[in-house]
Amino acid sequence: MRLKCALIAITLVSSPVAAADPAAINRIADQAMNHGQVVETAAYLTDRIGGRLTNSPAMREAERWTQAKFKEWGLRNVHLEGFEFGRGWWIESSRVRMTAPRPLALHAIPIAWTPPTDGAITAPVIVAPMTKEDHFTKWRGKLAGKIVLVSLPKDPKDEGEAPFKRLSGGELAEKDEYRQPVYDPSEARDLAKWFRFGRRLDAFLKAEGAIAWARMAQRDNGLVHGEGYSFRTGETPSLPAVELAAEDYRRLTRLAKTGPVTIEIDSKVHFDDSDSKGYNIIAEIPGTDPKAGYVMAGAHIDSWVAADGAADNAAGSAVVMEAARILSAIGVRPKRTIRFALWSGEEQGLFGSYSYVRKHLVTRPAQPDPEIASLGPWGDQTYPITPLPGFRDLVAYFNMDNGSGKLRGIYAEGNFAAVPMLKEWISPLASMGVTSVVAKPTGSTDHIGMAELGLPAFQFIQDPLDYGSRAHHSSLDTFDHLRAQDLRQAATVMASLLLSAADSDKPLPRNVLPTQPSVTRPFDYEDPDKD
Amino acid sequence: MRLKCALIAITLVSSPVAAADPAAINRIADQAMNHGQVVETAAYLTDRIGGRLTNSPAMREAERWTQAKFKEWGLRNVHLEGFEFGRGWWIESSRVRMTAPRPLALHAIPIAWTPPTDGAITAPVIVAPMTKEDHFTKWRGKLAGKIVLVSLPKDPKDEGEAPFKRLSGGELAEKDEYRQPVYDPSEARDLAKWFRFGRRLDAFLKAEGAIAWARMAQRDNGLVHGEGYSFRTGETPSLPAVELAAEDYRRLTRLAKTGPVTIEIDSKVHFDDSDSKGYNIIAEIPGTDPKAGYVMAGAHIDSWVAADGAADNAAGSAVVMEAARILSAIGVRPKRTIRFALWSGEEQGLFGSYSYVRKHLVTRPAQPDPEIASLGPWGDQTYPITPLPGFRDLVAYFNMDNGSGKLRGIYAEGNFAAVPMLKEWISPLASMGVTSVVAKPTGSTDHIGMAELGLPAFQFIQDPLDYGSRAHHSSLDTFDHLRAQDLRQAATVMASLLLSAADSDKPLPRNVLPTQPSVTRPFDYEDPDKD
Repeated sequence: MRLKCALIAITLVSSPVAAADPAAINRIADQAMNHGQVVETAAYLTDRIGGRLTNSPAMREAERWTQAKFKEWGLRNVHLEGFEFGRGWWIESSRVRMTAPRPLALHAIPIAWTPPTDGAITAPVIVAPMTKEDHFTKWRGKLAGKIVLVSLPKDPKDEGEAPFKRLSGGELAEKDEYRQPVYDPSEARDLAKWFRFGRRLDAFLKAEGAIAWARMAQRDNGLVHGEGYSFRTGETPSLPAVELAAEDYRRLTRLAKTGPVTIEIDSKVHFDDSDSKGYNIIAEIPGTDPKAGYVMAGAHIDSWVAADGAADNAAGSAVVMEAARILSAIGVRPKRTIRFALWSGEEQGLFGSYSYVRKHLVTRPAQPDPEIASLGPWGDQTYPITPLPGFRDLVAYFNMDNGSGKLRGIYAEGNFAAVPMLKEWISPLASMGVTSVVAKPTGSTDHIGMAELGLPAFQFIQDPLDYGSRAHHSSLDTFDHLRAQDLRQAATVMASLLLSAADSDKPLPRNVLPTQPSVTRPFDYEDPDKD
Repeated sequence: MRLKCALIAITLVSSPVAAADPAAINRIADQAMNHGQVVETAAYLTDRIGGRLTNSPAMREAERWTQAKFKEWGLRNVHLEGFEFGRGWWIESSRVRMTAPRPLALHAIPIAWTPPTDGAITAPVIVAPMTKEDHFTKWRGKLAGKIVLVSLPKDPKDEGEAPFKRLSGGELAEKDEYRQPVYDPSEARDLAKWFRFGRRLDAFLKAEGAIAWARMAQRDNGLVHGEGYSFRTGETPSLPAVELAAEDYRRLTRLAKTGPVTIEIDSKVHFDDSDSKGYNIIAEIPGTDPKAGYVMAGAHIDSWVAADGAADNAAGSAVVMEAARILSAIGVRPKRTIRFALWSGEEQGLFGSYSYVRKHLVTRPAQPDPEIASLGPWGDQTYPITPLPGFRDLVAYFNMDNGSGKLRGIYAEGNFAAVPMLKEWISPLASMGVTSVVAKPTGSTDHIGMAELGLPAFQFIQDPLDYGSRAHHSSLDTFDHLRAQDLRQAATVMASLLLSAADSDKPLPRNVLPTQPSVTRPFDYEDPDKD
């Protein structure tokens, strides 16, 4: 294994796309493994600061603390970049109990951006499942004074798969299958409609005299999540609302079939309107060649608040911060500037990273549909795209947001030409488990605002651990669902890739700048009955 | 498949150990499947009555309700049989929160039979892991005014197995491996010592001026359990105590490494000393031959209180009740009396079923060691055993307490001679998944007080579902972790077996009445350093 690595190192030095000095990679690994602080950083973000909802006091604390750490570690140009967002909101305490037919504590969480209850409120429940406005008719006149259970109580699932997983070699290989991404214009419209339904449901329940509502958690096993999307100033919900653990929700619905059921909600939550802007945190290691552009690592640091935002995404944030610390600690003097970004507003629609795109990279025409525009910049699939001067400077972007598992490879996001260079750069670290580069595009997080412009912007293939099964957005997303060795490995890989990209003789190849949405369903008609 | 069943049926009719009329089995299946009430019964016990701690008001309600149901269904001789137990205890409400360094709701449950906090108490935590009295020295003088975290925060586990399981044919076959049970006299002594340590820890913490204590849940994933064993009148703990979810407990211990941490406990619990006796619930279908003895089905109906005691053991209780309802509904007139028992006090040490053994089956000398005697009757491994007149009357006992999964076979509990008869009795129901009879002995529940006397007392092999991984004793032991088809299958099997045993020409063979503890380690010495 050592001999093989040495041969690869020689290859790298003599290559026209020469990566970082192999000795630098060894110093990176030593810093990450033997002098690492990624575990302490993740612990501070999770245990000490806790869940970091965009614009909440905890997120403000994270903005201050991460800047202080970057400065302490010798990073330069440490600053915030703001974008318009909406209200801050946080939970001081909350309690939901069944009071009849018997006293019982329920697992629940206030839904983000819903108002407080102003002390405990107690009322009978009514089970009134509603998923579209047509359903309102059935319940009109029946909801006054009630706490309305709006979800259909779906049956529990038989959990026949292991919750905690690592990718086998075979599973990793299976990820290397390119498929053209499907552009479906109805996706943004459907989402806008769903948010609109949420607003209308709130208004309907309020008009009917309901005093609060509750929904059922999507997962079983006592987990709660509490995501909410009505965060704009002047648009937050009018009624208190909670998400109940599936087991507790179903129990209420069964009991309600046989007699009266009363619950008590005491939701002590607060809005914070001191600043409607969200802020990305930026820091740099300056490059020696001002004309060579920059490379960047990023991760969103905002989270939901059912727990401490550990796997989603203190893990990625701590790894990005640790890469910065490591590269600063070993005293690199890269050709290109290395920039570090901790995004905010990701959970509500990639607001932070898209604001970066609009500020530094491109302009696009305004979205004509106001409802889609309300989704935020990621609803803006408008053309033509006009590059800004900063467009040519971004040479590589690496994003971490697939949980806390070790990095097993790179999604090259449709940038076929970049595959060989990325493979070469990770090759010295193969024995750490990072072995794969696949062209497959992926979605759902902060790289897509850049990747969709043809920029070399990548995400990582990670061991899943219990991200999908348990931690993602849930009340279990705590430090305990991180693994120290995985975080150290990820910091090693991230720092190495950044240095390779920053020092590479040739920049990473770019993809084509698109001139229209990709057309993958040329013969589809739209269903006229679809609302 | 039908043809095969018919052939088996013919065999049964002509067999010298003739089981129930095959037509009766079909009527049983029809009642269980098409007119079943087992789901409604389980829902009432769990959703409506909830967790049924021995001697708690909920358990009293279960005693009343189950008797009423037995009577409604036409059972005879419905009555309670009492045994001395201790105090009742129940949770009206409880809340545990971290108040510094930040506000955060914690998942927690008061430990059974600990006192209330008398309003919210708030105090700094100290992490002081203690597992034996030697450890007290280290913490003496440091605990005054503190909430003491007494568990060592063990690392989280990678949950690499599916939580929900059914037995494959191969796994079922692997259970058929007889091993001589190990009688280890240190087991009872170790348990008595552990309980003694618990009492001394409570006294030590009280003497040191600690105001409460907390332990860590044994399982991850936010589950809590809250088992406690100091339930005797005059011996309940002096300090409030809670069990914290593992993730929450570990967070407190990590934060305490870097600064002060304060938590608030509001434990509104109540003792109920209206009656110190626990009660088994008994009901019968009288036999036509008063000299033929009786067969019995049993399950404990008491539970812990972190949830609703569903898989442990509303499932078994509902199946026993449903078997009674089915046999009554189809109008059986069995040769032998069929008795149904719902045991209480199982969770604290098989108190209910052992009291039945002492009242109806045998007498044994008093346990000379008072500490082992304090464990209750199951600590009484004393000899000689003297049969009572009722000893000869018990012809078969079937116990259900291995969760809520369908019955896949029978543990014949070392009664080799009974295997062929049991196999024959289940053979018509093979297509329902019950196919196996194994001689292997099992422990831990209410059949052992009878099986250890050589009586034909059996437990079932059941599909595990998520009993071991999730539900057992935990905050997830709710109705949602039951499966309707499994309960109906179990009721069919239970009713069929009871009728086969009640009508069998020959009674089931018995095992040898033991005259001394089994000696399986003749050459062991006891470790003199062991406390």
